[in-house]
Amino acid sequence: MADAGWPGCARSLKGVILDMCGVLYDSGEGDGVAISGSIEAVKKLKASDLQLRFCTNETQAARETFVAKLRRLGFDISVSEVFSPAPAAVAVLKDRGLRPHLLVYDGLLPEFDSVDKTNPNCVVIGDAAEKFSYQNLNEAFRVLMEKPVLFSLGQGKYYKETDGLKLDVGVYMKALEYACDLKAEVIGKPSPPFFQSVLNDMGLQPHEVLMIGDDLVNDVGGAQRCGMKGVQVRTGKYRSSDERHPTVTADGTVDDLAQAVDVILEQRH
Amino acid sequence: MADAGWPGCARSLKGVILDMCGVLYDSGEGDGVAISGSIEAVKKLKASDLQLRFCTNETQAARETFVAKLRRLGFDISVSEVFSPAPAAVAVLKDRGLRPHLLVYDGLLPEFDSVDKTNPNCVVIGDAAEKFSYQNLNEAFRVLMEKPVLFSLGQGKYYKETDGLKLDVGVYMKALEYACDLKAEVIGKPSPPFFQSVLNDMGLQPHEVLMIGDDLVNDVGGAQRCGMKGVQVRTGKYRSSDERHPTVTADGTVDDLAQAVDVILEQRH
Repeated sequence: MADAGWPGCARSLKGVILDMCGVLYDSGEGDGVAISGSIEAVKKLKASDLQLRFCTNETQAARETFVAKLRRLGFDISVSEVFSPAPAAVAVLKDRGLRPHLLVYDGLLPEFDSVDKTNPNCVVIGDAAEKFSYQNLNEAFRVLMEKPVLFSLGQGKYYKETDGLKLDVGVYMKALEYACDLKAEVIGKPSPPFFQSVLNDMGLQPHEVLMIGDDLVNDVGGAQRCGMKGVQVRTGKYRSSDERHPTVTADGTVDDLAQAVDVILEQRH
Repeated sequence: MADAGWPGCARSLKGVILDMCGVLYDSGEGDGVAISGSIEAVKKLKASDLQLRFCTNETQAARETFVAKLRRLGFDISVSEVFSPAPAAVAVLKDRGLRPHLLVYDGLLPEFDSVDKTNPNCVVIGDAAEKFSYQNLNEAFRVLMEKPVLFSLGQGKYYKETDGLKLDVGVYMKALEYACDLKAEVIGKPSPPFFQSVLNDMGLQPHEVLMIGDDLVNDVGGAQRCGMKGVQVRTGKYRSSDERHPTVTADGTVDDLAQAVDVILEQRH
């Protein structure tokens, strides 16, 4: 298995991790729209002998709300199967006794209910979208000039919504890093501890698991650096230039999740 | 002179270049406020045998409007003495046949009146302040994903207004550079061609000229890289950590412009 490429590696897999936005659905107005064939593909994986987890850098909604949206779209997913950066950040903050100034989307705030936010001594940014106003960014900047500890929930450059590409949290992370001469700590993909927490939950070794995502650097490259295989789908934020990327080469590239799952299950029969 | 440090170097100076915001005045509501002693200091320089120019990365207003504000504050300054990035950018755009998508403050738009802005094939960003909304940044980003040519009017990290530190254009330049995997062309300080255009106008060699600014990297470091001396004032965005900066060391540090001018003129008597 260790040397088998895609799709041969599928024969010895024990688990699959799926990115969500751009793989299962495209976000946008309302709940967004399911990507053709994805609902059925998740069903097929669940009916197989493979373990399945979902790993997202989604930080616009608390997991409960987010999973409810996916269920409305028709996906069979439960909260315990979903790994996202906010709960991981809460654990880090509590562990280190840090009190965050939050620059996150309103929908994410409930994830931080249990965290002391008085007299902040660090900043946490998520995909705040419209909340990334000049004024809000200045407020975060001023906290950082006094307390230079920045956590970024992901480092994505952009994602695709139904009405076009949108800037992601990583862009604002870079902005604040430059403004304050500091280096952010990334919580979420492609941070190795984040992927490792999913592997731990599955009880599997990296070489037994395949990551499927639309983000070449954060999904595919991140998983590969942890020892997993990584396959990119040509949906979501995929761009044809990804297939000529200077540093990351996917183990395989498929049209969409439906094709990926069909290929995997075919290899195993 | 070439080896003389501050303040001895003042004896052989032939010209002085002054940064404006943070040296002459602090910006903020309305016209901002003149920094104590600066109006008199400019008068003293003008009465001396030194040539005097003003060099600013100000991009919130057209030069005419900006100079009118300084005159209202009490400064004896005329438009022809002031060098700012927007006119330099217009020259570059025309020279290269580029049509900009502008993400600049409304007050700067008149500087670009003569430029064709239809069907943009590049992006120009200035200190857009509140106009750096998520929506406007997404629009600039989408142009850049098709036409990856970005001009940034300065690369400052932040500046000081009367109500606190504010993020400057450089922070958004870094954001778009990261989002689009490109390198911006900086027009304004600390870009050497920009300083050189001021020296050309004075008809002086770099070693004959001293730059005085509050921005250690962009004013002092930029001038030094062109062969000028650079002195930092402890007003504006100055922070005590500037005096322990890892890569830029000012030739001198003074409390304010008034003190700098007194020291210069004293050396020359």
